Amino acid sequence: MSIAAGQAFAEWMAAVQARTETSLSRLLPSAESIPARLHQAMRYSTLGGGKRVRPLLAFAAGEITAAAPEAIDFAACAVECIHVYSLVHDDLPSMDDDVLRRGRPTCHVEYDEPTALLVGDSLQSLAFELLARTPQTDADRRVEMVRLLAAAAGSCGMAGGQAIDLESVGKALTQPELELMHALKTGALIRAAVLLGALCGAPLADAERDALDRFAKRAGLLFQVVDDILDCTASTATLGKTAGKDAAADKPTYVSLMGLDGARRFAAELEADALACLAVFGERSRRLAELATFIARREF
Amino acid sequence: MSIAAGQAFAEWMAAVQARTETSLSRLLPSAESIPARLHQAMRYSTLGGGKRVRPLLAFAAGEITAAAPEAIDFAACAVECIHVYSLVHDDLPSMDDDVLRRGRPTCHVEYDEPTALLVGDSLQSLAFELLARTPQTDADRRVEMVRLLAAAAGSCGMAGGQAIDLESVGKALTQPELELMHALKTGALIRAAVLLGALCGAPLADAERDALDRFAKRAGLLFQVVDDILDCTASTATLGKTAGKDAAADKPTYVSLMGLDGARRFAAELEADALACLAVFGERSRRLAELATFIARREF
Repeated sequence: MSIAAGQAFAEWMAAVQARTETSLSRLLPSAESIPARLHQAMRYSTLGGGKRVRPLLAFAAGEITAAAPEAIDFAACAVECIHVYSLVHDDLPSMDDDVLRRGRPTCHVEYDEPTALLVGDSLQSLAFELLARTPQTDADRRVEMVRLLAAAAGSCGMAGGQAIDLESVGKALTQPELELMHALKTGALIRAAVLLGALCGAPLADAERDALDRFAKRAGLLFQVVDDILDCTASTATLGKTAGKDAAADKPTYVSLMGLDGARRFAAELEADALACLAVFGERSRRLAELATFIARREF
Repeated sequence: MSIAAGQAFAEWMAAVQARTETSLSRLLPSAESIPARLHQAMRYSTLGGGKRVRPLLAFAAGEITAAAPEAIDFAACAVECIHVYSLVHDDLPSMDDDVLRRGRPTCHVEYDEPTALLVGDSLQSLAFELLARTPQTDADRRVEMVRLLAAAAGSCGMAGGQAIDLESVGKALTQPELELMHALKTGALIRAAVLLGALCGAPLADAERDALDRFAKRAGLLFQVVDDILDCTASTATLGKTAGKDAAADKPTYVSLMGLDGARRFAAELEADALACLAVFGERSRRLAELATFIARREF
């Protein structure tokens, strides 16, 4: 990427992140509305941080289908609400028992445990309410978005990946087992972000949709492999969450399976595969390609 | 009600309850599918018990609009999934810390706390996936069902009512405050069950929809007032859950606010009001009227 292209991409990213923050602030219940404490805790957990990787993917995929930004706002915020709910529940004492998230106290530390439980539950409901209300998108596509996101979030998606993760602590998983866990735990929602963004625009031909889906699956896996590398190499301050906790919890990761160099080589392969899937879209997939490269090389 | 009518109603109830059990068993992930332990816990929490009040309301409301039973199955199971998720999360140690539900150990006792958290989360996702897949119902109505159920479940509905409940322990609420809490905590989902059942069939005129909505709100409140009376008068064995726990937790109830006789008079008034709302529908609302009376006079 040239310096000028790199700068244009950085500006696009910053613009989408700022737009997502504004949309989330507008679409979340206000901090004054009853029950105020719950709504404040929802806003505390959702606003003011986060890399917004899933909204970025939704907006980048929306460029492929020339989707209206006002529609993508709803899809992007819905996916982000599911992501944040999963973080809030994952941080609970009975799960990872973590105290730090995005550089701040986790929800149950800042508020209390019952409130954090209800924050996660309410954010999940809000995600589907937002999809049902997506503007400039016909009912057939809104129904398809609900179906996709619900499947991605549920017991055969993200929550199912969490369940496998719980059972895997202290076990040596094979690469296929590790890939299944991550395909569900992280991959399903990353994939949903891409597909939902594209669904906000013009219909894709079957072959195009398949290519986008293959891209989305590789991008999800790539994100997780890089996450595992960073958990092992970056500091808590850089990550804004507790570093090294997977190794400390004796959780299987790509680094524990392949070693650090092996995981880095695997990430490079996934990046190349993902980019190859986008060839069919040409220039329309520029942002999505840049984003895949960014995900592969991020340092936080 | 004549003896023959009473018997026909009892048979209808038993048939809907059996049909709901069969539908839930079919629509929940199988106990063998991965992750098996999570799916077993979802089935443990959902199947084999429960009064199925919300599915009964959905089927009764569906008679008003001549809805296809195959469509109501999905709406009824979706509402029941939300209800069961709320029970599983409500029973967690950080919330009500209850060990008994439907006469059996609660989910976190039978399995473990992280699994119970994921069971609730997954059941919520499943509810919206089911609505998106409702057969014999056009996309516009499926979207409206998602919007209604998401609003009923979220922070301005059921979860919001839970949040107010948490804050109200040890406080003397006024009747309007208590009604707001219950309108959200129990009423919102009861109302959604009625409206979703009706949405599965032919469109209602505006005045009819308003009448049905007024009925649904009164039925929700009635259900809670009777629940408070039973919590105070019935035994743990009869209820299949811990009796007297609201009083023990110093939670405000209709009985603590109005006394037992006052709560009983209020329930009778609500029943009469609810039945009056149904007059516009004539014979089509027979089951819904019978159900309101059943809810008012139930002893478990």
